Amino acid sequence: MQPSEIISKKKRGEEHSSEELAFILKSFLSGEFADFQMSAWLMAVCFKGMTLPEMVEWTQLMWKSGITFQRSNRSSFWVDKHSTGGVGDKPSLLLVPLVSAAAERLMGKGKVKLPMVSGRGLGHTGGTLDKLESVPGFSSKLTVESALKLLEQNGFFMMGQTEEIAPADRRIYALRDVTSTVDSLPLIVSSIMSKKLSENLDGIVFDVKVGRGAFMKTQSQASELARALVSVARANKIEATALLTRMDEPLGIAVGNFLEVEECWDFLNGKQEEGLKECITEMATEMLLLASQGKINRQTCLEACQEELSKTRSQDMFKLMFESQGGSWQEFQIARGKLPAFYTTLSVKAQQSGYVSSIDALEVGLLLNRIGGGRKKPSDKVDPRVGFRFLKKVGDPVSVGDVLVECIIKKEEHEEPIKEFFGKAIRITKEKLEAKAIILEKVL
Amino acid sequence: MQPSEIISKKKRGEEHSSEELAFILKSFLSGEFADFQMSAWLMAVCFKGMTLPEMVEWTQLMWKSGITFQRSNRSSFWVDKHSTGGVGDKPSLLLVPLVSAAAERLMGKGKVKLPMVSGRGLGHTGGTLDKLESVPGFSSKLTVESALKLLEQNGFFMMGQTEEIAPADRRIYALRDVTSTVDSLPLIVSSIMSKKLSENLDGIVFDVKVGRGAFMKTQSQASELARALVSVARANKIEATALLTRMDEPLGIAVGNFLEVEECWDFLNGKQEEGLKECITEMATEMLLLASQGKINRQTCLEACQEELSKTRSQDMFKLMFESQGGSWQEFQIARGKLPAFYTTLSVKAQQSGYVSSIDALEVGLLLNRIGGGRKKPSDKVDPRVGFRFLKKVGDPVSVGDVLVECIIKKEEHEEPIKEFFGKAIRITKEKLEAKAIILEKVL
Repeated sequence: MQPSEIISKKKRGEEHSSEELAFILKSFLSGEFADFQMSAWLMAVCFKGMTLPEMVEWTQLMWKSGITFQRSNRSSFWVDKHSTGGVGDKPSLLLVPLVSAAAERLMGKGKVKLPMVSGRGLGHTGGTLDKLESVPGFSSKLTVESALKLLEQNGFFMMGQTEEIAPADRRIYALRDVTSTVDSLPLIVSSIMSKKLSENLDGIVFDVKVGRGAFMKTQSQASELARALVSVARANKIEATALLTRMDEPLGIAVGNFLEVEECWDFLNGKQEEGLKECITEMATEMLLLASQGKINRQTCLEACQEELSKTRSQDMFKLMFESQGGSWQEFQIARGKLPAFYTTLSVKAQQSGYVSSIDALEVGLLLNRIGGGRKKPSDKVDPRVGFRFLKKVGDPVSVGDVLVECIIKKEEHEEPIKEFFGKAIRITKEKLEAKAIILEKVL
Repeated sequence: MQPSEIISKKKRGEEHSSEELAFILKSFLSGEFADFQMSAWLMAVCFKGMTLPEMVEWTQLMWKSGITFQRSNRSSFWVDKHSTGGVGDKPSLLLVPLVSAAAERLMGKGKVKLPMVSGRGLGHTGGTLDKLESVPGFSSKLTVESALKLLEQNGFFMMGQTEEIAPADRRIYALRDVTSTVDSLPLIVSSIMSKKLSENLDGIVFDVKVGRGAFMKTQSQASELARALVSVARANKIEATALLTRMDEPLGIAVGNFLEVEECWDFLNGKQEEGLKECITEMATEMLLLASQGKINRQTCLEACQEELSKTRSQDMFKLMFESQGGSWQEFQIARGKLPAFYTTLSVKAQQSGYVSSIDALEVGLLLNRIGGGRKKPSDKVDPRVGFRFLKKVGDPVSVGDVLVECIIKKEEHEEPIKEFFGKAIRITKEKLEAKAIILEKVL
């Protein structure tokens, strides 16, 4: 096989054989299929796509370039979730304690396990690991061995991708990042799923975001992505469900790593923003439903979730999530109490009365990035403390002078541009718009 | 400017600004725009194309990465031709002497000059330099200085691309070759024209081949290429004409470097195959017409060419073409007289009577390649002596036992597969097909 002939085949829009895909990956890793050939092939994939069999094969090849979490038996159900990324996107932090607690109640201890390999924020979107790390001492750098030990003991772990997990995906992603070949459905699906296959899962629930603050701007794009993710998961004998969720305004109240952890704790103590509650409840129900393997109906799963939403057991699990990986919940609570000296709180007030009709999630994510709370490139450092708390969300009535948003910013930050920013990013109209559901569609 | 943003722009099908194209080329040459980014961009160009202004700009950038032949005045008209490549494609060898002789007759000595930078054979197509080098001693390795001296003295030179001529094109072509990004109209046009601009021409005639043995398989593809070549030439103030010529059967009688030089000499001595004659006459007429700058009409140019077709002056010019660059015409004539010991002549005879209805130029080119007369990759050595002489061409009547083709092959070559090959590559039918003209279309 000649690299240029293989590139030519994809350029003509033809389907690759398993042998050809295996040749591409193997010879890319050995250096025979050069970086400049891989990037040309990736660009051809952007234009010509992949068939489902190609996607399944390519995913497996990237997965098998690395390790798989070993398990001695299938007596417990291993389930994970994956979000395509958004602004204020914090469900993982709530789903781990909630699903653990509800599964214990429904199926007994140790029957459902959540091995979670998560990512970091980039561009306008946040990442679970960054949020977790805003708790002092928490470390996501686990070895596979210690991760499996945590899974055995607590039923979950939260770690980042390592060199051992789908290393081919890491190398290819680095190339895609600098050659404008990120936004290709088959490349997105195979990248996500290669890492999930390493987790040796039984089930997965996808949260495919749609709208201004999401990568997929339209419901039809998102639906196509959701179906491809579910298909590739099932082709690998992983049970899968996908929810399409709205990401036009930020999810929940807080945007910014520290503030989001704070919101999650408040959530488990009864302060539950409606959109976030809907998202969490639906996701958790789907995860439990998969884990029950047909033995429990949806209504029972849903009710178990609802009951656990403010229970001590969920709160304990939440604290355990940090403390089992070195985080000090006590220190977080102390830090929460007083803002460090070099930060300040800026309250942005409504200039007119009416109803909040939109909050631009994309622009909010980019602003967080600009004030230091996000990453422009993967090597950037993140300031966990900065962020925004939206006191009014879409549909809420406001009067002139009401605080719309509290911003935690560095003292050196110029306040005027931020006020101006929110004057544009938060739209207020005279008429109340009809409330929109968070869940747009389910792929079951 | 960020490389990935620029790639993304082309991927979306948008037009680059001059600044962006200049950035791509400059930063590619400096290494900032990496090979893997260039190949991704090239692939995006394959899918999204370039506008005429982009093509003009990109051509100029590649041209200006190298030298331009210097000329002190415009008292002579510098004209070249370019063929997109075919099988038995020998017009350059005849056009240099013929146009020189006819121009002298029509316009006086030294008024028309032919600075020719030519290429080598690759794949199924032959190259002018390889043909020239089958004359013992001939060298195409000229310095720019010596080339200009020859142009002054004789009115022409024949050289290969050097490191100084459009080096950016050389580097980019090497990358295109291994990333399946060769067959893109704007990339083909800019590659050809960047080298032609280095010649500092006043006029150029393109021979765009169409058919089985050409890169362009359909007339509409070829027409589009011809129009783009003419447009880019004119945008650079070079007068241009393009002819679309048929390349279904090999051009002329001979295929193979030595045999083609032999055919050209015989041609100038009166043995003129009709298709080759038509092609040569039309090309020469167009070149003269451009050179006359509206002062001489087409009919007069055509008649001058026809008269020179078998004149001593053309023959002298032909010999001079080799001898002024170290070739010994006498040695060629001696070599022609007797086949070296390790070659043999194989005559393939007709198995049925009727009329020759097709000779597959592509397959003939590939066979020449297989028996050593062509190149699979640029570094391959070529055996000039092997080749084929077609005694019957499309439209000719044949009887069982007539020799269809004489093959000059190495003695170790197996004869049966070659006989079988021609049994398939030369089709004979009962009915005589209507003769087709060589010239399909003119872009004036």
